[in-house]
Amino acid sequence: MTPLARQIQRTLLAALPDPEAAPRPELAAYARLLRDYPERGGKMLRGRLVVLTARAYGDDTAALGVAAALELFQNWVLVHDDIEDDSDERRGRPALHRLVPMPLALNAGDALHAAMWRLLAEAGARRKVLLEFAELVETTASGQHLDLSWTLEGRFDLTPDDYLEMVRRKAAYYTAVAPLRLGALVAGRMPDPAFARAGLELGVAFQIVDDVLNLEGDPAAYGKEAAGDLWEGKRTLILLDWLASAAPEERARAEALLRRPRAEKDPAEVAWLHERLLASGAVARARERARRMAEPALAELERAFAPLPGREAAREALDLLAALVWRER
Amino acid sequence: MTPLARQIQRTLLAALPDPEAAPRPELAAYARLLRDYPERGGKMLRGRLVVLTARAYGDDTAALGVAAALELFQNWVLVHDDIEDDSDERRGRPALHRLVPMPLALNAGDALHAAMWRLLAEAGARRKVLLEFAELVETTASGQHLDLSWTLEGRFDLTPDDYLEMVRRKAAYYTAVAPLRLGALVAGRMPDPAFARAGLELGVAFQIVDDVLNLEGDPAAYGKEAAGDLWEGKRTLILLDWLASAAPEERARAEALLRRPRAEKDPAEVAWLHERLLASGAVARARERARRMAEPALAELERAFAPLPGREAAREALDLLAALVWRER
Repeated sequence: MTPLARQIQRTLLAALPDPEAAPRPELAAYARLLRDYPERGGKMLRGRLVVLTARAYGDDTAALGVAAALELFQNWVLVHDDIEDDSDERRGRPALHRLVPMPLALNAGDALHAAMWRLLAEAGARRKVLLEFAELVETTASGQHLDLSWTLEGRFDLTPDDYLEMVRRKAAYYTAVAPLRLGALVAGRMPDPAFARAGLELGVAFQIVDDVLNLEGDPAAYGKEAAGDLWEGKRTLILLDWLASAAPEERARAEALLRRPRAEKDPAEVAWLHERLLASGAVARARERARRMAEPALAELERAFAPLPGREAAREALDLLAALVWRER
Repeated sequence: MTPLARQIQRTLLAALPDPEAAPRPELAAYARLLRDYPERGGKMLRGRLVVLTARAYGDDTAALGVAAALELFQNWVLVHDDIEDDSDERRGRPALHRLVPMPLALNAGDALHAAMWRLLAEAGARRKVLLEFAELVETTASGQHLDLSWTLEGRFDLTPDDYLEMVRRKAAYYTAVAPLRLGALVAGRMPDPAFARAGLELGVAFQIVDDVLNLEGDPAAYGKEAAGDLWEGKRTLILLDWLASAAPEERARAEALLRRPRAEKDPAEVAWLHERLLASGAVARARERARRMAEPALAELERAFAPLPGREAAREALDLLAALVWRER
């Protein structure tokens, strides 16, 4: 963890209830539940991007609380997403709803959501910062609805454009657009319009790389189970690409597998589809597509950062943005 | 619905996405999902109390948005509570997670939670109002944790004091304390300390009456299934009172029933316990206890409202507070 990541994590954890101060044993357990995902760490990419962008704009005095709030967002969303997707693992450990009954995990996610807004209010966040948070939560939820409804309704009549629309909402906005915009707003400046346009492209590239790593990555380093997206029936670009050119019997076999609830999926069938995707070239094509989206986006963001006063912070922010897509885990 | 309740509901619904404006059919369905509970109505007791208290303090210009936000709180909490409690019905219709798959309902609840904060930010709510909302969400979540963990862990080693502690957090704070405090805060005034003390007592009395109505009430008027608390295994004051004096074999029979998950409960056994509770006098004792808590609390609140400039609004606020506990449904 970088010193900045550690500082953000400390700010975040200080905003959560302390188990030692709980008036009853059940409430100590509750406090530990809230701290579980945040204490697992994470790279704090989004929070660091807020602080570095604010520094690039020349004023990071109000950035730390907002950065920690954005990381709290990530934490409560993951708690709820893991329930919604029936995920097994998160950051190398069982998902929260595998450690305690689902209702307790759901409720802990709500408490983390409220703690995010408390942090913003305590940091004296400007109205525009609050509205940006509302925007990022609402955008993410609308993307999550698309993703979930496709899986739950067993839909495969989807194009790469459908995938891009879903991912812009579900991941790209809060991963790249929001941190850049928040960095400008906490510094009291208007966000560069390039942040929305190029940030969205870069954020989509980030998610495509995430989908690639889900199939190709080392699960120990990646922190989630191998091919979890297949177990969860996710409609990824890679899957849609492969389905579009698969032989009819292979397509039918894959769709039948993906429509089954997790518990009814045959591991041998999951392994078959995993191999087919890796062998087909669809994974390599997705990587290439991410690269083609990320390069011009990074160049555009570099131009947006060029005139800002905080040169070193701008350099670090751009390195972080590049690391979002050129990562191996 | 009173004109004020209608005004609050309109403000609330205007803050939610419009299905007609959705860019894709799935997002129209998403918008309808968010509007489902709010469109079912409700009495808007808490929202009305915010506006009337602000008027009593002499300035309700900023009250409507905050009142609508508090009603949005009620809506998203009910969506999530109904999932956590595996409830069947809400406001006379199936619970949201019975209409669509649970993950979609959970996600819609998160979007409503964000819309609540957007409404507050757009209304230009003061920092103290934002912190009061953080307080009410966090207090409610801690009470919900107590309630859920007792049920999920099959605990019956609970006293009436445990029940009171749970209910103060889970229901009393957001039902009575928060609306009174918010009414003062939106008017730019310090909340009277009586609001916290007497509001908590009154709010507990409200919940005890709710537990009574769950067993005694007409389900059509009440909007939830009859004896839903027994199906959900809730530790109510009535149940704890009855268990404390029940014959050992009856106590064992009741505990065995309440520990079973909803789907495995025998309806005849639920009917047996329902009858026993009604016949035992525990329901009547709970009603009496609610009355003994509510009367001095109402008197204290009357004294707090007495010096305020808005006499008519103060009268209406006190009527509303009395109606919380002297209701038949």
